[in-house]
Amino acid sequence: MVARAATDLRRQDVRDRLLDAGVSALLSAGYAQTSVDDIVKRAGVPKGSFYYYFASKEALASDAVARYAEMDEPLREALGNGNGKPLVRLKRYFDTYVAHYETKAFVSGCLFGNLALELSDLSPPVRQALSQAMRDWALAIETVLIEAQETGDLSAKVECRTMAGFVVNAWEGALLRMRVEKSAAPLQNFLTITFDQLLVS
Amino acid sequence: MVARAATDLRRQDVRDRLLDAGVSALLSAGYAQTSVDDIVKRAGVPKGSFYYYFASKEALASDAVARYAEMDEPLREALGNGNGKPLVRLKRYFDTYVAHYETKAFVSGCLFGNLALELSDLSPPVRQALSQAMRDWALAIETVLIEAQETGDLSAKVECRTMAGFVVNAWEGALLRMRVEKSAAPLQNFLTITFDQLLVS
Repeated sequence: MVARAATDLRRQDVRDRLLDAGVSALLSAGYAQTSVDDIVKRAGVPKGSFYYYFASKEALASDAVARYAEMDEPLREALGNGNGKPLVRLKRYFDTYVAHYETKAFVSGCLFGNLALELSDLSPPVRQALSQAMRDWALAIETVLIEAQETGDLSAKVECRTMAGFVVNAWEGALLRMRVEKSAAPLQNFLTITFDQLLVS
Repeated sequence: MVARAATDLRRQDVRDRLLDAGVSALLSAGYAQTSVDDIVKRAGVPKGSFYYYFASKEALASDAVARYAEMDEPLREALGNGNGKPLVRLKRYFDTYVAHYETKAFVSGCLFGNLALELSDLSPPVRQALSQAMRDWALAIETVLIEAQETGDLSAKVECRTMAGFVVNAWEGALLRMRVEKSAAPLQNFLTITFDQLLVS
């Protein structure tokens, strides 16, 4: 049983290494320019292992979307943990990403947005994974907006589901523009309008 | 002189055909998946002509950005022509694109957004062309927002430049999400929040 558990652990470990390598490779080069060879090299595993875990590069890209969403979990937990007012937490959530993109010199951007534009018309499974991941993400934001309405920090007139969807999409648009301008200005613009004009009491 | 003028006209024509073919090819397949062969085939001109007008595929992509912006000119003229209230004209501008994307079954999206994510980190000239085109676009929207303030249809508190930049980016984000959802819902969401909550008196 112990040996079996250890094998399972190693399996999980190899799969995770392949997924993490996939996320990095897809973020830096995009889907078309990333090969299975690039991914196994980055992960430091033999090529045969790739096909043990994933039927194809497309299957990996699909799972990489879910993996990328998992990487956001600690921040989503902080978003919902009640430490500070709801809109303060939401602002802090986006501020963390602004700081992250600053350290990355405004390259690469968000895997969701990148794969959305590259694969939405080409890969139904990746499109489906993106749809699910972006809905889950919007739901996390909707939850904090509802909380903000309950504490009176957000106007009761705001339709939280519509607004959460808008905020997620506007953020993706701001990231796209950030990559063009190579500057945090579009992200600051997003924060200004979102927190000074949209999410107000 | 007449012969010379006719030659100039044909040259312009071939260049335009290559650019239009480039816009279509880049929109449907993206930059990496489009070859110079694809473009000359679409344009119906011999391959040699391509290199007479463009030093490289990258040079064409750069000029295709400006060409794509030109295609928007009739709509931008309607945006500024004083026919109807400023915000009504702006809403009509976006409605026209919503109808356009509906007829296209929500594929391909906007060339600016697609090239922004594919090439911003790889091609300084394309990034520069995108930066210019997106600034010009935001300026056209800023102009109509200023007009709306003058007619009292938009709150004087709105900082029109910041807002125009935000609207352009949020629209790109809505298009990105449209491609994931294969539905007009993200565009309708953009219109609802933009016209019911952001651009109000």
